[in-house]
Amino acid sequence: MYLDQHVDTSSNVFFMRLESCFALPDFDISSFKENFEHVIGAPYKMHWSIHLEDTKPKMALFVSKYNHCLYDVLSRYHSKELSVEIPFILSNHTDLKPIADQFNIPFYHIPFSRANREIAELEQLKLLKKYQVDFIVLARYMQIVSSTLIDVYPNKIINIHHSFLPAFAGAKPYHAALKRGVKIIGATSHYVTEDLDEGPIIAQDVAPVTHANSIADFISKGRDLEKIVLSRAIKLHILRKTIVHQNKTVIFS
Amino acid sequence: MYLDQHVDTSSNVFFMRLESCFALPDFDISSFKENFEHVIGAPYKMHWSIHLEDTKPKMALFVSKYNHCLYDVLSRYHSKELSVEIPFILSNHTDLKPIADQFNIPFYHIPFSRANREIAELEQLKLLKKYQVDFIVLARYMQIVSSTLIDVYPNKIINIHHSFLPAFAGAKPYHAALKRGVKIIGATSHYVTEDLDEGPIIAQDVAPVTHANSIADFISKGRDLEKIVLSRAIKLHILRKTIVHQNKTVIFS
Amino acid sequence: MYLDQHVDTSSNVFFMRLESCFALPDFDISSFKENFEHVIGAPYKMHWSIHLEDTKPKMALFVSKYNHCLYDVLSRYHSKELSVEIPFILSNHTDLKPIADQFNIPFYHIPFSRANREIAELEQLKLLKKYQVDFIVLARYMQIVSSTLIDVYPNKIINIHHSFLPAFAGAKPYHAALKRGVKIIGATSHYVTEDLDEGPIIAQDVAPVTHANSIADFISKGRDLEKIVLSRAIKLHILRKTIVHQNKTVIFS
Amino acid sequence: MYLDQHVDTSSNVFFMRLESCFALPDFDISSFKENFEHVIGAPYKMHWSIHLEDTKPKMALFVSKYNHCLYDVLSRYHSKELSVEIPFILSNHTDLKPIADQFNIPFYHIPFSRANREIAELEQLKLLKKYQVDFIVLARYMQIVSSTLIDVYPNKIINIHHSFLPAFAGAKPYHAALKRGVKIIGATSHYVTEDLDEGPIIAQDVAPVTHANSIADFISKGRDLEKIVLSRAIKLHILRKTIVHQNKTVIFS
Repeated sequence: MYLDQHVDTSSNVFFMRLESCFALPDFDISSFKENFEHVIGAPYKMHWSIHLEDTKPKMALFVSKYNHCLYDVLSRYHSKELSVEIPFILSNHTDLKPIADQFNIPFYHIPFSRANREIAELEQLKLLKKYQVDFIVLARYMQIVSSTLIDVYPNKIINIHHSFLPAFAGAKPYHAALKRGVKIIGATSHYVTEDLDEGPIIAQDVAPVTHANSIADFISKGRDLEKIVLSRAIKLHILRKTIVHQNKTVIFS
Repeated sequence: MYLDQHVDTSSNVFFMRLESCFALPDFDISSFKENFEHVIGAPYKMHWSIHLEDTKPKMALFVSKYNHCLYDVLSRYHSKELSVEIPFILSNHTDLKPIADQFNIPFYHIPFSRANREIAELEQLKLLKKYQVDFIVLARYMQIVSSTLIDVYPNKIINIHHSFLPAFAGAKPYHAALKRGVKIIGATSHYVTEDLDEGPIIAQDVAPVTHANSIADFISKGRDLEKIVLSRAIKLHILRKTIVHQNKTVIFS
Repeated sequence: MYLDQHVDTSSNVFFMRLESCFALPDFDISSFKENFEHVIGAPYKMHWSIHLEDTKPKMALFVSKYNHCLYDVLSRYHSKELSVEIPFILSNHTDLKPIADQFNIPFYHIPFSRANREIAELEQLKLLKKYQVDFIVLARYMQIVSSTLIDVYPNKIINIHHSFLPAFAGAKPYHAALKRGVKIIGATSHYVTEDLDEGPIIAQDVAPVTHANSIADFISKGRDLEKIVLSRAIKLHILRKTIVHQNKTVIFS
Repeated sequence: MYLDQHVDTSSNVFFMRLESCFALPDFDISSFKENFEHVIGAPYKMHWSIHLEDTKPKMALFVSKYNHCLYDVLSRYHSKELSVEIPFILSNHTDLKPIADQFNIPFYHIPFSRANREIAELEQLKLLKKYQVDFIVLARYMQIVSSTLIDVYPNKIINIHHSFLPAFAGAKPYHAALKRGVKIIGATSHYVTEDLDEGPIIAQDVAPVTHANSIADFISKGRDLEKIVLSRAIKLHILRKTIVHQNKTVIFS
């Protein structure tokens, strides 16, 4: 019903995404997989996976104190715009617990500091395992995620950074943008890798600013960018329209 | 008839641009200036200047081998869209001489290399002086402009850089953008300062790209951005709608 | 501290918005108003009004069945991004009552049909009066608002229409846009007047679409546009940055 | 090497564009065509065509008095950005002849009025035939093209209209946009059909405007949109990335 493909001519790799409707009454996914690997996958040395549309992936939300991305994701979730399950929200602060309650989603508070980092991450991992989480969304989670998590969730942790990367990586990008006097600000959603803000970019968007805009204006305009760009990335991930290759993404149409 | 203003609250500076129509039959600009300084300028410690609409500034064009910005500027010039005089085009190559000829504009070829840099710059200065040039536009001029020129033309040399600065400053920004896997490319027009690609930004714009775009596609899309953004900056400069303050621009409406 | 102005040269009207800080310990707004009218307002035949920043206007929300704009407005309200009070949410359906409950805002259900239109509108007016509502936001309220309300709230009813007006006014704009094969869809926020979708435009934005997008894609992309554009208009209205003149808006910076 | 496809599920039509490299030393295009039709085209009831990359299509330019689109197209042509031949420029006025001369392209002046319409169109057709023109670009040609031409060049006449169609079809769209008080203006490139400004849309783009913009500002901003959008459409057409179906375009990536 749908097919999109891409050839990376520099590395000679072929990418394809195919949506199909299996209308057979006795369709069996596991025997299909076996056959597919036997007849097509293995002979052609393909990396492939198959997913059923009605199986919703489990998405954990990590937040800190900013609520706009959290509200936006939860609203879309409630409206069935995002076809996921959200087993829990995790935060290093308790500020956003009321929003979790408002949407009836379990909220876990795991404080985070240099001192307890390793213990905190093990607790995080335990939760992720317990709830069989498929991927993680950092909805303005203000902590650096370490390889402890990244290794378990490679290309499965989505972050939103409040600048048009690679400009203004790291802390306080709006302040840096104001100082540089840019005429455009941006937001970037990317998969988290061990290099801070250097992971494969999934989606970006921008908005115009002027000399008359204060830091408060930058932050306010940026909030809208952040939530739109993050949701765009989440949707692409859920629909499995992203493939990471050489620290870049192929984004299917 | 028109007034725009801005207060920089961090440095407590007030900026204003005013357009007026002097309908007096015996209006004399020099006595007006004298009075203005005496009655208003000096008492209030203003930096001010006044310009007559029908006095066209003289704009020199520096180019190398790329022709799209040159064509665009000359077309607008020919169409009277840009209210300037263009006394000459200068290049370190001869490739674009035919276009200068096509538009009947004097073309000077001053080769440029590490060895002859200082001599070349003196020649450039001589030309600029001879033609009483008011400001310089680097229309994809692929050489670094030194303080020899910058000191004579402070905030009067407009460059177009083919990235959304501060991302991808320096050489080959499209290649760097492709490698980073960005989803948006940009172009930035700024005043040249001694710090490469770090001068006050006048205008920026962006265009979407995808994984399917090759470096040729980036360059092709970028050409359109570059010429639009450069012309926007030139127009703002001609209309004196730019004021530089602390390495940033106030852009009047 | 801030001043923006505009001259409509075709109708010879001068518009100005001024923000000031009255630091006097015994500042009295009512005597200030009196003096202002006496000394400045009346002699210069000005239409003027003055508003205190800490007085939050009262905004009623009218909704039907779509929840994305409602969620977005309420999230911003909860985050103190919108400096308003929301005394109630009104709907011709009960579908969105749970969201009103979630945010602890009174919800009124006033069914609406051709038969009961006049009675329903009188009920609406009674509520608006009771709660001393200052302005109304139609957050995808799928009913036509009549002069009964418009006369009481002139240029105070903000609607969001899901097209870049004047294209695709009226019902089912996304379907019409898909049929026409446009490459860009839009959303428009405007003040409601008696001419359907022809009121003064406050804000517009657009998003690219392709031949591959289905009607579901248009609606999904459009949701993001609608909520961003509606909130932009609400903010401008709250900050009194809009003035309506000859069915157009002056939007202050 | 490249393949893009689309399924129109409402009309059950499959579209595909394939780029291939035929590396055989004795490759013969005509025998290939014959075989293709015999083995694939006819059995599957395909509409298909094949084009060699190094065969440049012949593009006629129709203009009136505005020169910005003409300059832009000719600059790109001169820079080899557009892989076409331009056998001639045709106009109902002589104003732009100097530009044709500047670029060494034959210029034909065929005056156009209600009285001589039919004769003029026959002259146009004669020229188009003589030069074996493949497609026509109306670069702000201010006359309505009749079925006399359209029937000979179905979906092969590209127009640029200075509004985001379907808003402001017909004459003076910028004036209409200003009057309506829109916050965004646009330009639309489409194939000419007998219904004025209702042909299949190829490309659209928009730019923000404000209450402070005059009609001169709209026209000036619009010029940039027009030339960018027109060139985008021309490029897509040259690369045969457009297919018209049910008055809409499929635009290949």
